Amino acid sequence: MMTHTLPGEQTRLVPGSNSNSRPKKRRISKRSKIIVSTVVLIGLLLVLLQLVFPNTIVLRSASNKKKNVIFFVTDGMGPASLSMARSFKQHILDLAIDDILTLDQHFIGSSRTRSSNSLVTDSAAGATAFACALKSYNGAIGVDTHHRPCGTVLEAAKLAGYLTGLVVTTRITDATPASFSSHVDYRWQEDLIATHQLGEYPLGRVVDLLMGGGRSHFYPYGEEASPYGRHGSRKDGRDLIDEAKSNGWQYVGDRKSFDSLLDNNGDNITLPLLGLFADNDIPFEIDRDEKEYPSLKDQVTVALNALEKASNEDKDSNGFFLMVEGSRIDHAGHQNDPASQVREVLAFDEAFQYVLEFAESSDTETVLVSTSDHETGGLAVSRQVTVGYPDYVWYPQVLANATHSGEFLKRKLVDFVHVHKGATSKIENFIKYEVLERDLGIFDYTDDDVKTLIHLGDNMNAIQDKLNDMVSFRAQIGWTTHGHSAVDVNIYAYTNKKATWSYLLESLQGNHENTEVGQFLENYLELNLSKITDLISDTKHSSDFDAAEIASEVPHYDEYYHELSH
Amino acid sequence: MMTHTLPGEQTRLVPGSNSNSRPKKRRISKRSKIIVSTVVLIGLLLVLLQLVFPNTIVLRSASNKKKNVIFFVTDGMGPASLSMARSFKQHILDLAIDDILTLDQHFIGSSRTRSSNSLVTDSAAGATAFACALKSYNGAIGVDTHHRPCGTVLEAAKLAGYLTGLVVTTRITDATPASFSSHVDYRWQEDLIATHQLGEYPLGRVVDLLMGGGRSHFYPYGEEASPYGRHGSRKDGRDLIDEAKSNGWQYVGDRKSFDSLLDNNGDNITLPLLGLFADNDIPFEIDRDEKEYPSLKDQVTVALNALEKASNEDKDSNGFFLMVEGSRIDHAGHQNDPASQVREVLAFDEAFQYVLEFAESSDTETVLVSTSDHETGGLAVSRQVTVGYPDYVWYPQVLANATHSGEFLKRKLVDFVHVHKGATSKIENFIKYEVLERDLGIFDYTDDDVKTLIHLGDNMNAIQDKLNDMVSFRAQIGWTTHGHSAVDVNIYAYTNKKATWSYLLESLQGNHENTEVGQFLENYLELNLSKITDLISDTKHSSDFDAAEIASEVPHYDEYYHELSH
Repeated sequence: MMTHTLPGEQTRLVPGSNSNSRPKKRRISKRSKIIVSTVVLIGLLLVLLQLVFPNTIVLRSASNKKKNVIFFVTDGMGPASLSMARSFKQHILDLAIDDILTLDQHFIGSSRTRSSNSLVTDSAAGATAFACALKSYNGAIGVDTHHRPCGTVLEAAKLAGYLTGLVVTTRITDATPASFSSHVDYRWQEDLIATHQLGEYPLGRVVDLLMGGGRSHFYPYGEEASPYGRHGSRKDGRDLIDEAKSNGWQYVGDRKSFDSLLDNNGDNITLPLLGLFADNDIPFEIDRDEKEYPSLKDQVTVALNALEKASNEDKDSNGFFLMVEGSRIDHAGHQNDPASQVREVLAFDEAFQYVLEFAESSDTETVLVSTSDHETGGLAVSRQVTVGYPDYVWYPQVLANATHSGEFLKRKLVDFVHVHKGATSKIENFIKYEVLERDLGIFDYTDDDVKTLIHLGDNMNAIQDKLNDMVSFRAQIGWTTHGHSAVDVNIYAYTNKKATWSYLLESLQGNHENTEVGQFLENYLELNLSKITDLISDTKHSSDFDAAEIASEVPHYDEYYHELSH
Repeated sequence: MMTHTLPGEQTRLVPGSNSNSRPKKRRISKRSKIIVSTVVLIGLLLVLLQLVFPNTIVLRSASNKKKNVIFFVTDGMGPASLSMARSFKQHILDLAIDDILTLDQHFIGSSRTRSSNSLVTDSAAGATAFACALKSYNGAIGVDTHHRPCGTVLEAAKLAGYLTGLVVTTRITDATPASFSSHVDYRWQEDLIATHQLGEYPLGRVVDLLMGGGRSHFYPYGEEASPYGRHGSRKDGRDLIDEAKSNGWQYVGDRKSFDSLLDNNGDNITLPLLGLFADNDIPFEIDRDEKEYPSLKDQVTVALNALEKASNEDKDSNGFFLMVEGSRIDHAGHQNDPASQVREVLAFDEAFQYVLEFAESSDTETVLVSTSDHETGGLAVSRQVTVGYPDYVWYPQVLANATHSGEFLKRKLVDFVHVHKGATSKIENFIKYEVLERDLGIFDYTDDDVKTLIHLGDNMNAIQDKLNDMVSFRAQIGWTTHGHSAVDVNIYAYTNKKATWSYLLESLQGNHENTEVGQFLENYLELNLSKITDLISDTKHSSDFDAAEIASEVPHYDEYYHELSH
C-alpha cells in the first residue's frame, strides 16, 4: 500500500517538477510516500473524527444499507418491576445473587413520562410520545393536544421503504399499538382503530404485520361461535377479518395455524399478515395454555421470520420497523398481582433475548430499543406488614408458590359459586383447598380470609383484589394504586454495529423526556414525521358517538372497561 | 512543524546513508518529512488507541497529575424521589414541564442494592458495599460477612497521598460516613465509631475533615448545657472534642464559627477539621433555621475550600477524596413525609450543582459520582384515594403548602399539649389553626382528623405519622413501608476531563451491583483495598456490650433509635 501511487498523481508530478538528476521513478516513489502518508493521515483523521463525533456524517453516508429497528414497550413496567422479577428469577432458578436479566445488560437511560395534561400519563399519551415524538393528553391515540392526527414513526418508516409490524399480548387495538397505526381522539374507539390499522384512512395500509389479541374489534357485535372467535364487539356490524382476507391479508386466528407459520421459518407467510389469537387479551403468562395461545417469544419469532424474509425478497426494502409490546405487565400492575407480573416480565425478557440473538447474528444493521410508557400500581418491593418497625425483607418464594393469577382465579371461583349456589361448605372447601392451597400455595390463610371470599359472592373484581392482596401481603410486596404512577422508567438499547452504539449512547444515554425516544426513532431511521402529519389531516378521528361522554362513563382501567364492554 | 527535525535524527541520518549527490541539508529535510509523518502517524495511532480503549494505559501513565473525587450518597433516594422532587421544583418555580434537576443531567446508570443477608439492604451494608467494594450483612460498618474489618476507599486514598473528608447532614457517626471511616460489628456502636474516626485504631487518623451532626457521640453522657451541645451520649465518659483539640484538630461547633470559615474561603481552616453542628441530626431543610445550622451546600463549600487549599499547599498531595451525603432524604422516607423529602432532594441537588461548578472550573482532574444506598419508604408518586378507579394525578401544590416537617410539628404539638394539659379546646384550636392551617396549609381537614390528633396525646410518632399521612393523602403520594425497599437506585457521574468520561461510561454506564461502585472508586484512584484490610485486622470492632442483643432491642429506624437513646 505504501508504494501505491494515487490516480492523477503521475500527471501532476511530471510537468513543472524541479530539475534534478535522480531517476524519475525513485523521485516519484519518494514523493508518493509523503503523499500516501498524508492521505493515510487524512484517512486516520476522518476515522478519528468519526470516533469522537460518531453522529456526524463523516463516514455514515458512505454506506446505504438496510436497517432494522425493533422497538419494545414494556407497558407499566417501572424500576421496581425489574428488581422484583430479577430476584424472583434468582430464587426459582437458584442463581447467584448478582445474576441479572437480559434486559439489565442493556440498560442505557431513563425516560420521564408525564403527558401534556397530567403528571401521571396513561398508555395512550405514553405511546403517542414514542410514535409521534410529541406530548399529548391522556387518552390520545396518534393525535396531538388539539386532536389533530400526528404522523407516526411506523407510518413514516413504511413510506420510507421499511416493512412494518406490531406484536402485542393485549388487544392489537389497545393504546400502545394503536398509537403507532391509527389516529383517534380517545383510546376506547377501538372499532375505529381497527379500520385504520387495516388501511381505511388517508395513507391506506401502512402495517404489514399485526399480531396479538383483540379479535372482538374485528368482528360484528353479538355473534356467538363465529368462525373467528366467540365474541365480536363491532357496533357497525362489519366483519373486518373477512374484509381483510378479501384485501389480500393472510389471516391466522388459532394456535394450530400459528404453529404452521412458526414451524416453517416464515416460508408459508405472506404479508400483510393479521394474527388474532384471543377475543380480548392473551392470558397472563402464569395462566397461558400453551396449546391455545402462543407466547410473546413465539409471536416475535414469526414476526421476525416474516419481516426478514419479505425484506430479503424485496430489493427496494430498506429493512423493517417492528414494535413489540410486553402489554400485560401493566395489567398485572393494575390488578396489584405480583405473581403474574414477575412471569410477564420474564416472558418479555425471553422475547427480548430472542430478538437480541436475531440481531447478533444478522448482517443487517439492527437496533433494539426497549422502554416503558409509565409505571403501574405504585409497586414497591417492600411492604410493612407490622405495626412495629418492619423487617428489611421480601419473599420471592410466595410468588413462586402461586400458579395462577387473581384474574384467572376470580373467574374460576365465581364459576364454582354459580354452579354451587348456596352450598356454603362446598364453596368454603373449594376456596380453601382448591384456590388458596392448590392454586396459590397459601396454607396460612385465616378463617377471616375464607369468610371474606365467601362473602364477596360473585363480585369478581373484589375477589381478584382480595386474592392478589393475600399474595402481595405474604410476599411483603406493596402497591399504592390500581392506576399509574409518575416514576421515570428505564430505557434499554442494543445494536449489532459498533459505530451505531456510539450514536445510541449519544441519543439515549441519560435521562430523557419520553418524546426524545420518539425523536430517536425518527432521527435514526432518517424520517420526517411532519411530512406524514400533512398527509393525514383528513383522517376520521372522532367517534360517531360522543367519546368524551363515554370516557366519563367507563373506568379507565383496561380490564374493567373490557369486562363492561362484553 | 513539518520542517522541524526531531532530536537525535541528525546523527542517525548522517552515517550509513546511501551515497547520492544532492545536498545533505535537502536530503535530511526530505527524509525527515517522512520520518515526521511517521512519528505523527504513530502519535495519531496512540490517540486512536486511547479513544477506542480509553481504559488502557497508552497515554494515562504519561501524566502523574492530581485527582479529586467527590463521592455523593443520597441516602434512601429511589427513582420515585427524583420524579417527585423534579415536578415539585417545576411547580414552585413555574418551570417548563421538561425542566430537570442538575442531577438528572448526569444520570449514567443504576445500582442493585441487596446486602449479603437480605434482598432489602440497610444503610450500613449499603455504604460498606461502596466503601469496601464487598457485600456484607445488614448492620455491618466497614466489616465483611465474618465481621472482619475491611479496608475502605477512604483509608486507601489517605495512605495513597490523598486528603480525605466526610460531610453529612445526619450524625457523622451514622452508617454511611461510619462505613468509610470505621469498622464495627453493628451500626449502633456509634460511640466506638467516633473514636475510630478520630484515629484511635491501627491506621491512626485517616480522615482530614469531618462535618455534620452527631455531637452527642463525642461528648460524655448525662452532661447538660455543655460548651459543645446540650446532650452527650458517650457511655465511657470521654470528651472526644477536647481530646481532638489536644490532638491538633480544629473544631467548629456552631454556626458563627462555621460562618467564619465560610467567609474566609478556607484561609482560616487548618486540617484536620471537626465540625459538629447538631447533637443529633441537622434539621430537615424544610425546618432548618438558617441562623443556627449550615446548609449542605454551605458545608460542602467549606469542605472543598479546605481540601483544595491543603492539597495545593502540599506538593506531595495527590488530590482529595470527599464523601458527601444527602443523609436525611432517607429520614423523610422513613417518616413517609413527602413535603420534607422534596426539600431534602433539592438541597442535595444544590450541593451537587455547587460541586459540579467547582469541578468545571478546576484544573485538577475531578470526578463526581453520586448514588443511593437503597430506596426508603416504598415511595410511589401516585396513590389511590378512592374506592373507585383512581384519577391519574398527583398534586405538588400540597407539598408546596406545607412549611414544616411532621418531625418538627409532632414536637411543637406535644410541647403545646404538655403546657396546656387538659385544655382541650385550646389544643383543638392549636391543631386546627396553627398546625394544620398555618404550618401545613391544610384547610380541608375533617373533624375526625382533629379528634384523632387530640386523641393521640403525646404519642409523638403516631402524631408524626398522622400529619405526614394527611399531607401524602392530599398530594396523592403513596408509601408502602416505614423501612427500605429493593428497587434499583440511580447512579450519576461527571468529570471535567474528556478522556476520563469514557472511563466513567465504561465503568458506571448501565446496571451494576452496588459493590461495583466501590470497585470503580478503588480502580479510578488506583488503590488496593486488600492491602488496607491486612493492616486493620486488629481493629476493635465488637462492642463491650452484646451488640446483637442491643440490636434486637432497638428498632432499626434511625430516628426512633435515636429518640430512645436520649
